Amino acid sequence: MKRKPTVIDVARRAGVSQPTVSRVLNNHPHIRESTRAKVLQAIQELQFTPDAVARSLVRSKSSTLGLIVGDLSNPFYAETAKCIIRSAHESDYEVIMLDTDYDDALFARCLRTLAAKRVDGIIVASVTRTDERVKELAAKGMPVVLYNRNLDDGSLPSVEADNYMGAYMAMRHLAALGHRKAAFIAGPFQFTTFYHRYRGFRAGMRDFGFDSRARLVYKGAYTYAEVLAFTRRLLERKDRPTAVFATTDQMAIAVLDAASRAGLRIPEDLSVIGYDNIDWADNPYIGLTTISAQKTAMAQLALQQLLRVIEAKDEAGDEKKNVVLEPQLVIRKTTGACPDSVKPGIPEPKIP
Amino acid sequence: MKRKPTVIDVARRAGVSQPTVSRVLNNHPHIRESTRAKVLQAIQELQFTPDAVARSLVRSKSSTLGLIVGDLSNPFYAETAKCIIRSAHESDYEVIMLDTDYDDALFARCLRTLAAKRVDGIIVASVTRTDERVKELAAKGMPVVLYNRNLDDGSLPSVEADNYMGAYMAMRHLAALGHRKAAFIAGPFQFTTFYHRYRGFRAGMRDFGFDSRARLVYKGAYTYAEVLAFTRRLLERKDRPTAVFATTDQMAIAVLDAASRAGLRIPEDLSVIGYDNIDWADNPYIGLTTISAQKTAMAQLALQQLLRVIEAKDEAGDEKKNVVLEPQLVIRKTTGACPDSVKPGIPEPKIP
Repeated sequence: MKRKPTVIDVARRAGVSQPTVSRVLNNHPHIRESTRAKVLQAIQELQFTPDAVARSLVRSKSSTLGLIVGDLSNPFYAETAKCIIRSAHESDYEVIMLDTDYDDALFARCLRTLAAKRVDGIIVASVTRTDERVKELAAKGMPVVLYNRNLDDGSLPSVEADNYMGAYMAMRHLAALGHRKAAFIAGPFQFTTFYHRYRGFRAGMRDFGFDSRARLVYKGAYTYAEVLAFTRRLLERKDRPTAVFATTDQMAIAVLDAASRAGLRIPEDLSVIGYDNIDWADNPYIGLTTISAQKTAMAQLALQQLLRVIEAKDEAGDEKKNVVLEPQLVIRKTTGACPDSVKPGIPEPKIP
Repeated sequence: MKRKPTVIDVARRAGVSQPTVSRVLNNHPHIRESTRAKVLQAIQELQFTPDAVARSLVRSKSSTLGLIVGDLSNPFYAETAKCIIRSAHESDYEVIMLDTDYDDALFARCLRTLAAKRVDGIIVASVTRTDERVKELAAKGMPVVLYNRNLDDGSLPSVEADNYMGAYMAMRHLAALGHRKAAFIAGPFQFTTFYHRYRGFRAGMRDFGFDSRARLVYKGAYTYAEVLAFTRRLLERKDRPTAVFATTDQMAIAVLDAASRAGLRIPEDLSVIGYDNIDWADNPYIGLTTISAQKTAMAQLALQQLLRVIEAKDEAGDEKKNVVLEPQLVIRKTTGACPDSVKPGIPEPKIP
């Protein structure tokens, strides 16, 4: 592209300083009419149009946001990212999208990149519970809002669903169907989602009298292949569980896959419950019982909160808000009565 | 954020012009040592770091690309976008992501937005066959590469799979299974994907002796709900087709849904073939027979081509390349022998 004239060219042509040009562009009141006329003439002669990059230098605003997710091919993130991108566009912000594949070094690099690009703010989904780098960036004045994930100290604004409660609700649902032997599948506990869902799972195990054996718990890399392999080994055991609680819908679908390969019927032989309520969970071929994390509300609230932080950032008393949404149990067809003789009975739900 | 010092502040402090500061920053050879020293001192005193936005003004390069897709919640676009974002990041480019929801006015606005943001180039998936605005933008010097979609006149660089051939292969597969009554489901024909898949479908109908009735063809809005509704009406007909060719996997899954609700068994009562080979097509609960559009290769080639165009854009003889990938038939479990008495027979494949 032919190099466009900049405010500097305009200043030189008009014989004024660059800040004077900026003041004219921004309709500053204290400008002599003769100066304004000279600048406007130079603008016309050079066919200068103040573009977004130039304006960002003048106003220190890029109208660009950053969005960091762990895996865009996980529908939970594709669906929430679409919502954020569309809503941001309607508010005249565009979104630079970054995907970390849950790699910690890449996450740090993504933060540096967005800071160097001078985005106006960042929405982060892929953050560990104790990450310091995101706090440092926020301390330097970069507006940051976390979504779906949070820091242990809650020091940054965040929007998430109550992970502890969601997991507890999943266990209560399984208990009500008579299950007492459930496996638990999660990704790394350095993420709040998996950590608090595990805590809710443990509380549910205890309150509803589940059999608690460590070997029924998987926490690790949450690739489809690894979850599939774990589940296949799990289902080959003599004392296999009658239910599996997978802490993402993507993992739950890998569990359904393993069950199908092992010749088990769902839910007659095995109940499976997921977490997230991605669009696919509702597909009649999958029909996954799951916990809804209110993804659309979460995405919209995260963006709204970021825009509020951006607009308020020069003011004192910038309030930090940790928004926690209520999860919801969505019963579909992958959970059913326990095949064992255990009589279904609902222990009095004890919600802490 | 506290306002960062700019090149203009450095110039003022050093008592030199802003272009001189730029020349020092860019290691320009013809700078007096005393001038360089003054500028470097001013840089140090002001704690100036040339950031990405400032450098983009100086070098006229933002290291930012635009990516416009029609629907990020369609896994085909989420999966290809992830691939583009990750590969771009490795080449030190970040990606501003835009989602048009297939809205034409929004598409035009997305182009204007990216131009104003001075991105270095744009990858476009959501373009109609005759769009003039994208050509105008390219004519003004903006590097543009199309992926999965193309213009009728092929005037811009593009990467796509052979849509005509893919559809023809789908029909040949159905014919080989004995089907002679197939329905066709597509989105609007102003997109090359649907248009050429329709042409391939027609050629397959003719060459393999299919029953050709217009009422078996759906072209329209490709929301899940509309495709579902059309298919339900279709399957209620006395003379219902024995096979459905849906031109995206997302549509194929809506067809499976409708068939399931109508109590039909797949593939015993109805064969269904999709297009795209999204990751979900391989899920054992879906197991969709489909045409692979080589999505990973397509995404990577589109990015490589854009980076080539960006780097070569000041040179004459910038070659326009229309890359066409070979589609592949992926047979899974949603297609099977025709339930009618028609004897399976494979007419000699006539590939134009």
